Amino acid sequence: MWLAQVYVTLKPVVNDPQGLAIRGGLRNLGFESVESVRAGKYIEIKLEASDREAAENAVRQMCIKLLANPVIEDFRFDLEYVA
Amino acid sequence: MWLAQVYVTLKPVVNDPQGLAIRGGLRNLGFESVESVRAGKYIEIKLEASDREAAENAVRQMCIKLLANPVIEDFRFDLEYVA
Repeated sequence: MWLAQVYVTLKPVVNDPQGLAIRGGLRNLGFESVESVRAGKYIEIKLEASDREAAENAVRQMCIKLLANPVIEDFRFDLEYVA
Repeated sequence: MWLAQVYVTLKPVVNDPQGLAIRGGLRNLGFESVESVRAGKYIEIKLEASDREAAENAVRQMCIKLLANPVIEDFRFDLEYVA
């Protein structure tokens, strides 16, 4: 069994209203040292695959087809083998 | 300037309808090898702090006070110094 940890983030040029709202909330709470905030998604996927390459290909396809919107989002992932 | 990468995940005992929906979507798309999916948040914060300890304390407080709901969510974060 493989565990994929997938990070989906907005591309740097894309406006991030959720990140701006979090930044505003943090500053209102007194965290004046906060410069900027970007919000993204973190997804853990457990999947069966014969080897690392097969798992990598599967997760990449999942990101492209469902998890990320390639027009406005970037994705990256780590893979580890779990029992 | 410090960059904090914050991961907020639902505690393992908490139901994750968003993760279940993603799992269903992936399986419908033909990714039958997907066993389970957990959805979480990924937040990047840039902040000023005098040293690593100060940055760590600030980010921990941000997580407790705003970013995570400690009743149902866990959080962890990585810190790195950026120019």
